[in-house]
Amino acid sequence: MPSILEESGYSADRKLKIVGTNPVKHDGADKVTGRARFGADLILPGMLHGKILRSPHPHAMLKSIDTSKAEALPGVKAVVTRDDFPKLPLGSPGGDMNRNCMAREKVFYDGHAVAAVAATEEAIALRALKLIRVEYKVLPHVLDPVEAMAPGAPILHKHIKGEDGKPTNVVQRLDLAMGDADKAFAKADLIIEREFSSQPMHQSYIEPQACVASSGDDGSIDLWCCTQGIHVYRDRLAVMLQMDSSKIRVTQSELGGGFGGKTNMYSEPVAIVLSRKARQPVKIVLSRNEVFRATGPVSGTHSKIRMGVTKAGKIVAAEAELYFQCGAFSGAMMDNAPKAMFTRYDLKDVKTLSFEVASNRPKVNAFRAPCVPQVVFGVEAIVDEMARKLKMDPIDFRLKNAAEEGNTPIYGVTFGPIGFVETLKAAKKCAHYKTPKKRGQGRGVAAGFWFNRGGDTTASLTVAPDGSVNIILGTSDVAGSRISIAMMAAEELGIPLDKVRANMADTTTTGNNRVTAGSRTTFSSGMVVIDSARQAIAELIRRAAEIWDVAESAIVFEDGHCRPSSSNVGDFEPLSIADITRRTSVSHGAVAGHSEMHVTGEGSGFGVHIVDVDVDRKTGRVDVKRYTVAQDAGKAIHPQQVEGQYQGAAVQGVGWALNEAYVYGDDGVLQNPSVLDYRVPVASDVPMIETVIVEVPNPNHPYGLRGVGEVPVTPTLGAIGNAIGDAIGIRPRSLPMSPPVLLNLIEGGS
Amino acid sequence: MPSILEESGYSADRKLKIVGTNPVKHDGADKVTGRARFGADLILPGMLHGKILRSPHPHAMLKSIDTSKAEALPGVKAVVTRDDFPKLPLGSPGGDMNRNCMAREKVFYDGHAVAAVAATEEAIALRALKLIRVEYKVLPHVLDPVEAMAPGAPILHKHIKGEDGKPTNVVQRLDLAMGDADKAFAKADLIIEREFSSQPMHQSYIEPQACVASSGDDGSIDLWCCTQGIHVYRDRLAVMLQMDSSKIRVTQSELGGGFGGKTNMYSEPVAIVLSRKARQPVKIVLSRNEVFRATGPVSGTHSKIRMGVTKAGKIVAAEAELYFQCGAFSGAMMDNAPKAMFTRYDLKDVKTLSFEVASNRPKVNAFRAPCVPQVVFGVEAIVDEMARKLKMDPIDFRLKNAAEEGNTPIYGVTFGPIGFVETLKAAKKCAHYKTPKKRGQGRGVAAGFWFNRGGDTTASLTVAPDGSVNIILGTSDVAGSRISIAMMAAEELGIPLDKVRANMADTTTTGNNRVTAGSRTTFSSGMVVIDSARQAIAELIRRAAEIWDVAESAIVFEDGHCRPSSSNVGDFEPLSIADITRRTSVSHGAVAGHSEMHVTGEGSGFGVHIVDVDVDRKTGRVDVKRYTVAQDAGKAIHPQQVEGQYQGAAVQGVGWALNEAYVYGDDGVLQNPSVLDYRVPVASDVPMIETVIVEVPNPNHPYGLRGVGEVPVTPTLGAIGNAIGDAIGIRPRSLPMSPPVLLNLIEGGS
Repeated sequence: MPSILEESGYSADRKLKIVGTNPVKHDGADKVTGRARFGADLILPGMLHGKILRSPHPHAMLKSIDTSKAEALPGVKAVVTRDDFPKLPLGSPGGDMNRNCMAREKVFYDGHAVAAVAATEEAIALRALKLIRVEYKVLPHVLDPVEAMAPGAPILHKHIKGEDGKPTNVVQRLDLAMGDADKAFAKADLIIEREFSSQPMHQSYIEPQACVASSGDDGSIDLWCCTQGIHVYRDRLAVMLQMDSSKIRVTQSELGGGFGGKTNMYSEPVAIVLSRKARQPVKIVLSRNEVFRATGPVSGTHSKIRMGVTKAGKIVAAEAELYFQCGAFSGAMMDNAPKAMFTRYDLKDVKTLSFEVASNRPKVNAFRAPCVPQVVFGVEAIVDEMARKLKMDPIDFRLKNAAEEGNTPIYGVTFGPIGFVETLKAAKKCAHYKTPKKRGQGRGVAAGFWFNRGGDTTASLTVAPDGSVNIILGTSDVAGSRISIAMMAAEELGIPLDKVRANMADTTTTGNNRVTAGSRTTFSSGMVVIDSARQAIAELIRRAAEIWDVAESAIVFEDGHCRPSSSNVGDFEPLSIADITRRTSVSHGAVAGHSEMHVTGEGSGFGVHIVDVDVDRKTGRVDVKRYTVAQDAGKAIHPQQVEGQYQGAAVQGVGWALNEAYVYGDDGVLQNPSVLDYRVPVASDVPMIETVIVEVPNPNHPYGLRGVGEVPVTPTLGAIGNAIGDAIGIRPRSLPMSPPVLLNLIEGGS
Repeated sequence: MPSILEESGYSADRKLKIVGTNPVKHDGADKVTGRARFGADLILPGMLHGKILRSPHPHAMLKSIDTSKAEALPGVKAVVTRDDFPKLPLGSPGGDMNRNCMAREKVFYDGHAVAAVAATEEAIALRALKLIRVEYKVLPHVLDPVEAMAPGAPILHKHIKGEDGKPTNVVQRLDLAMGDADKAFAKADLIIEREFSSQPMHQSYIEPQACVASSGDDGSIDLWCCTQGIHVYRDRLAVMLQMDSSKIRVTQSELGGGFGGKTNMYSEPVAIVLSRKARQPVKIVLSRNEVFRATGPVSGTHSKIRMGVTKAGKIVAAEAELYFQCGAFSGAMMDNAPKAMFTRYDLKDVKTLSFEVASNRPKVNAFRAPCVPQVVFGVEAIVDEMARKLKMDPIDFRLKNAAEEGNTPIYGVTFGPIGFVETLKAAKKCAHYKTPKKRGQGRGVAAGFWFNRGGDTTASLTVAPDGSVNIILGTSDVAGSRISIAMMAAEELGIPLDKVRANMADTTTTGNNRVTAGSRTTFSSGMVVIDSARQAIAELIRRAAEIWDVAESAIVFEDGHCRPSSSNVGDFEPLSIADITRRTSVSHGAVAGHSEMHVTGEGSGFGVHIVDVDVDRKTGRVDVKRYTVAQDAGKAIHPQQVEGQYQGAAVQGVGWALNEAYVYGDDGVLQNPSVLDYRVPVASDVPMIETVIVEVPNPNHPYGLRGVGEVPVTPTLGAIGNAIGDAIGIRPRSLPMSPPVLLNLIEGGS
């Protein structure tokens, strides 16, 4: 059988019955009514409650920890510290992960875990935390990445050395270039260079991290948690705790939002170590305070961007110097930024230099298109400024420079069919863009890009004797992918969607999968499920051939039935899937398909956002009045789900653009670790986000789909910045574009 | 790849490293300390407690049920009755199953469920039960199957008609014969005909049935329960509740004993219906009283058996008339009895007639070798009597008549290599048999047989990137099969057992499996796991070939490593599994194997038991002084586990033989529904059971194994009966052989 990777069977002519419709999500009502089981919803007999003691200092030596009084408190069953984790070298993957979950030599940020307690009741655990005596030697701290690179800055990790052999906070440096940017700038008639900055922002999932760990007598571990990747958690735990992966069973709960923030562990290893020590199950549920202080926001950035354009409106050169804050440990995934930032435009000569810089903040974590929106913010501001100076329509200007099939961006992979031009054209034609902006309002346009991802993915599909179908997915359902994947299976099998149920695996049930991230899941899990369905169909054909006593080649499978391929085969009534499984399940075993793939062929995604804003010139308050997202989905399997991705990303972008920021005091302590003081958008902050789904099929997928989750956040900051610039005539270049910042600009500040 | 079913690769010469050793069970300590999670151990948020109202009458029309007062009780969230189950026709599978779980037109036995309540607390649910008003019209009842066949007996099911067209309690009749028994009896020099009877006995698992059901908003169901077969529960629920199998997810807890008693559902459908109505999860845990009154015991039997033997000691003919009590509904699996009862002996002429008879008792359920020990009891008594009359050693007499390879028993399948002769010889040579019995004691010998089973079975095997292995088994682990199956995988893969973990599936994760029953699991799951491991090895070889850039055929896999097949291939360091998966997991996806099989080739099993007893002639009390089980295991994968099966079955046989019985009053109400009054053996009732493991390999399995769980219960009743007969000179022919019964025999009664 040719692999689905080699021959997807994509055909524009295929008549689809289920793919492209909007059935009700089978898991939807349970999720919104709270009947679904989220991370905190598991209760086990004898379960203890774990609480974590956190550093009040942003940077300090951990001189001693005295847990004796806490251990003596009745109801306390275990107290753990650094001594309960394997001592792995600093700088090794397990060593750094362990230290981020439980401080060893030093604490690196306000909120860094230093000890934990498991007790029969939460209140006892909290009381015990107060009985732990920690002796700190407070060290000078640094929060800003640029300051952290300055000579004499406090150094977080002495083992990391710069080119000069001296300790540095620069944990990674990346030069990435193509062509000859210096020479190309000479061809430009107009060169614009600007500096931009962005603040870290939190993923702001509704559900705080929650887990239950239960260790077995043989050292095995059962972990229930909310996660975007069970196998990644398992394999990282195996490294952190120095044990075999197969002894750790990670089971995922329903997920109350992830957005990248549930790709790394915080309390899970702590719960495990507590459970081992107490020999009872331990639940840890983080508070919102802990979520803000100790789980990953996205990188704050500084960027210096320079672009050159000819009079005719052709961008000829680009250059960027980028600084990414990673918090206490490396992990910002900054390489995405230089790879993606200019990739919407057909450039041959680009030069970038990127730095990842440690500082005394929580370690950053992934968020939709990690590190990309922050730098696209600057690029789209410059592109907008160019269009304005050249007196070109901003969409026409982008069309003139748009990346197309055959272009090779800086990361060296030549584009197949992509839909940027089509998306720009669709944006230009949409109702929003054709409507003149209202008096006093500003309108901004920006474009966005994401690679999309594939990678290791698994699924199994089994047919019950009654012909109904279960799918088990190794990849987490973060945003409702189950329905889309079930739809593809039902389409392949030619049966009603109602007969197909998609379920999530635990780590024992399927081979390893990458995290659900990078807009890979509907694409990749779709591939393995289609592959599995086709295997099942092959088996159904074998059985039909046996029932009819004809050759397999004399049978076709269509519309959910095995049929004779021609009237010469014989006069047979078509056999439905259920007809075959009812007759053969007991005699032939189960009908099933299984697929383990390293999925490739993800098609890149492009989007264009249009925003109208009102800016109150007396207060600096921005009101988003109208917002349209146009984006190429390849093929929208479940269009409402696709729209949900477009809309959700736009809303997150509104928050990031206008309000969200971490406020630290001079003491390095976070001052706004609550959703009262850290302002995420609420329903009244945004209009209904309008959507335009463009469909330029990805030929590598049987249904042509592309990932859609990351692209729509990438243009948000730029689009809103451009709209504000249009409204007030001054273009803000640092985030958040909050009332005090804008008021200052309006009043002539900088 | 040739199927493992076609070519098992069994080789007597294969050197085994892990199979045949006795490693510690990884799940053992958690089970005995209670840290393992059994059926009652799941707790869900918002979970309600379900309680069932049961009939106090053995037979009555259900005229009306008034639940209004119960519904009005604060804390009561749902009350269900027959009206909440689909009304399916009497006599249809779903119709009878529904009616056994919740009475519809009539109640059929004391303890039959008539209504159920779900409430926020157990105490409230119990109080609510008392508020339900049920109007019964009490009917005459019948308990004994022979009485139930008599003219004028109360009829349970009017829709079941006899050959005369009149309603009957005979729910099934089976004539099974071979050769010409009538003619063959003429060749006999000695014909013995006797009547025997046995009592129903309960499987007496430690853990009462427990489940949690949670219904989703879309009608889907999550069910956690203790079960011997998740897929069978799922598919039966689908029929009972008239829905798709794929919408029901059955997850198994650890099992605190099953022995066949957890192959059918009682409270599970009730919990589901309650959960649907209450829209909250519902837990039901049966009390021991409910377990006795309403879950299945084994069939009580009456049998008339006639056998003929020549002077030379050759058994030439056999005949049996068998009556099996099935309780309220059919399901005794009585066909096992005529098929198995004479099958230890090489007979050509056998005639049997069997009846399954309904009466006002709980529906019977499976127990080790369903229906077989009860009738082997009689056969082995007659065989013993023959040997005694012919003055032959009882083992020699059996050797003279023993079934051998090439024999075709009554069910028409010709034996392959079997180990009865070897087992008889081993028994004769064992320490116990060679030791003269003590003064005053009686010694009994009996032989037993079970077909062993195969059937639908599935497994998946996945290799983590670090080379450790998870297995997921679709078949329940009832008696510790996980370790044996993990051992076979480790042996195939050539890695330490510690690197392999066997886990149990839920119904979404693998294709369908038969229940764990009939001694099929270690054999069948072993087959699919070995098949899966071999698939994984094939994939490892493919990857090694790619790494070395050589042909796959140039690689051999041995001792857990890919090696060049000869020095001509090249100078390559062997690659371990972990070497390959570490290098390729991210680039090639997961290494895995999956197998769905209708497993065949189970080799039949034979055993010989030797028992010494003391009988107190003043009280009739029997003391089992020494007990040896010799049995062919084909190959003991984990010998201690095999011994555990031999010993456990012998102990259950001791209880059944000597004490266990249901005591009903004239009112048809069970009088001893507690373990105080229903006497199961305790440690002080039995000696250490000695074991002799005979190994005559089953050529259809790569390691030669045969199932071992059923065989060792089949001779128990006969062996103990023969020992008592030897001790007191009078052979008891009805069970239990309890003190009052024996005292009556000793005192000259009948």
